[in-house]
Amino acid sequence: KQIILLPGDGIGKEIMDSAKAVLLAIAAEYNHHFTFEEHAIGGSAIDTHNNPLPEDTIQACKSADAVLLGAVGGPKWDSNPAHLRPEKGLLGIRKALGLFANIRPVKGFSPLLHASPLKEEIIKDSDILIIRELTGGLYFGEPSERRENGNAVVDTLYYKRAEMERIIDKGFQSARIRNKHLTSVDKANVLESSRMWREIVEEKMQEYPDVTVEHVLVDAAAMKLITQPNRFDVLVTENLFGDILSDEASVLTGSLGMLPSASLRTDGVGMYEPVHGSAPDIAGKGIANPFGMILSAALMLRFSFGLEEEASEIERAVNECLEQGYHTADLQIQNGKQVGTKKITEIVLENLT
Amino acid sequence: KQIILLPGDGIGKEIMDSAKAVLLAIAAEYNHHFTFEEHAIGGSAIDTHNNPLPEDTIQACKSADAVLLGAVGGPKWDSNPAHLRPEKGLLGIRKALGLFANIRPVKGFSPLLHASPLKEEIIKDSDILIIRELTGGLYFGEPSERRENGNAVVDTLYYKRAEMERIIDKGFQSARIRNKHLTSVDKANVLESSRMWREIVEEKMQEYPDVTVEHVLVDAAAMKLITQPNRFDVLVTENLFGDILSDEASVLTGSLGMLPSASLRTDGVGMYEPVHGSAPDIAGKGIANPFGMILSAALMLRFSFGLEEEASEIERAVNECLEQGYHTADLQIQNGKQVGTKKITEIVLENLT
Ligand SMILES: CC(C)[C@H](C(=O)O)[C@@H](O)C(=O)O
Ligand SMILES: CC(C)[C@H](C(=O)O)[C@@H](O)C(=O)O
Repeated sequence: KQIILLPGDGIGKEIMDSAKAVLLAIAAEYNHHFTFEEHAIGGSAIDTHNNPLPEDTIQACKSADAVLLGAVGGPKWDSNPAHLRPEKGLLGIRKALGLFANIRPVKGFSPLLHASPLKEEIIKDSDILIIRELTGGLYFGEPSERRENGNAVVDTLYYKRAEMERIIDKGFQSARIRNKHLTSVDKANVLESSRMWREIVEEKMQEYPDVTVEHVLVDAAAMKLITQPNRFDVLVTENLFGDILSDEASVLTGSLGMLPSASLRTDGVGMYEPVHGSAPDIAGKGIANPFGMILSAALMLRFSFGLEEEASEIERAVNECLEQGYHTADLQIQNGKQVGTKKITEIVLENLT
Repeated sequence: KQIILLPGDGIGKEIMDSAKAVLLAIAAEYNHHFTFEEHAIGGSAIDTHNNPLPEDTIQACKSADAVLLGAVGGPKWDSNPAHLRPEKGLLGIRKALGLFANIRPVKGFSPLLHASPLKEEIIKDSDILIIRELTGGLYFGEPSERRENGNAVVDTLYYKRAEMERIIDKGFQSARIRNKHLTSVDKANVLESSRMWREIVEEKMQEYPDVTVEHVLVDAAAMKLITQPNRFDVLVTENLFGDILSDEASVLTGSLGMLPSASLRTDGVGMYEPVHGSAPDIAGKGIANPFGMILSAALMLRFSFGLEEEASEIERAVNECLEQGYHTADLQIQNGKQVGTKKITEIVLENLT
């Protein structure tokens, strides 16, 4: 299997090294052959190629079986013009690969749950899968421009019916293999696009009679994630709502640094990245938390390569590491041992097999 | 002063009666003359006028000094076509009156703070003023329609520069009379409208050198409201982001039923309504919490009539009521006394003066 590594900016390089080490150990253990090829993206690609998404990065990703991404962005490039911003690389690669389904599991780890901003009785037993449409909506709609001599501005929320259908299908299919409950989030009381979304959900319900469906308005969903996080199973929504709600959900468990994500298309090719950012303030210090990246590699094994056993093995090894009390500087465990990126990766490796 | 009452649907009528009683008591105490005129809006206006916003409601509101709104909506009208939905009345009256600034104070009440989903050390000392643009953006932009024979759909996020300027000014002015910190929320890494928004904030900073400004992306803001609610002072943002974030913020203190809101234009005319909805499930039972409505009336005295002392008097009376242990069914107070809408209104009246 050909895997493209896009470390990106900030702590991206350090955590990517960890994920690669874990994948090599898994390959040795289970007799798989993974090849890795590193390419530039984001701010570092702006520095080296004057382009946040160089053409050879796109080509390499297009012919790969899966892509691992570290993180992009940092203050260094914050005042760049729009086309020379690190995020352009991220948005560009999603679009170029057609990765329309962003999948984010939100589930706490018992040794870390005490760090949640929520009361324990609220957050405990929460296990949410957020599915966000990733290549449409306000992010890519045209026109997106100044008007009337700079005295007005317009962005466009555009969706094709087929784009809504495939992500809604993904929502139903995911609910079917989980707890069979789908929360569809829209703003149907205001937006025409949301009314079309809701119609499609209603149509699809017939095809998935085993899944119960609830329509929740995006503002109400933002409340309910906080007051009743354990009432969700799968949540499906469009791009911008998904951006906001998945980030909101990501802090509920109290350990953002642990969360992986997957961005998929229908044929199994996917890009995997941690939910956290590039953390420029701690880059190069050897203290970054590699778990979000390692768990993203596990999702790659599961979703792109169908290697369920290997994926679970990694997840178990990470869990064990926490149970043993090992954690990075961003986490706290009572009577735990705080260690750096390299050390904690070694412990994960020891816990494998 | 001419006040238009729009009770609307569900518990709207009950809580409006409470607010009116409190205003009459204040008028007697301070020798003011308030006249009240009731008009139809929302679902009940659909029932009586086949129109969620009858023309005479608009006219009455236009010539009034202020408007009090209960709540609109309910399952009865949920499957109506778009133009016969209760929300159309709400959106329509905002637009018709030009109420561009929605103001939502989010601050807990000590006797109720234990009900917050957040840990006490996280929520305590939080005092946020959310300012949301209310008459532009995706809510009103054209085109908003089906395309390509129903196989695509478009909504439009449109803002005039002047619309952004006036709400951003409101943000700075509000910060100036509070703790002098303004959080401006946008999605400038993706949206052209947000880039214009951010430019305007940067320009205005020169005019308000006493206010510190922080730009936060909407996804990051959704996180920070949960992890560090006490790091906010004034938050200003556009319509849809404001809808989502203000609802998110409204559950942080654990007592949604207490929160008031104001929707203003520059000349002081405003519409005041509680943050909660029409609660059709408990309508007519006499158990609704009238505090959000009563505190909205207090905001009316403050913002539209400049009656600061009278407004504070109401707020004090409500607070005292809670300190005395009185609460409605939606709230809990340890060793408190649960009472109905009428009774709790009487206690507020007793606490006045
Ligand atoms: C960096 C930004 C463009 C991106 C997005 O909004 O999609 C990020 O917030 C994310 O969620 O991956
Ligand atoms: C009812 C709905 C149209 C409205 C809005 O989205 O503005 C409501 O959620 C609000 O915040 O007042």
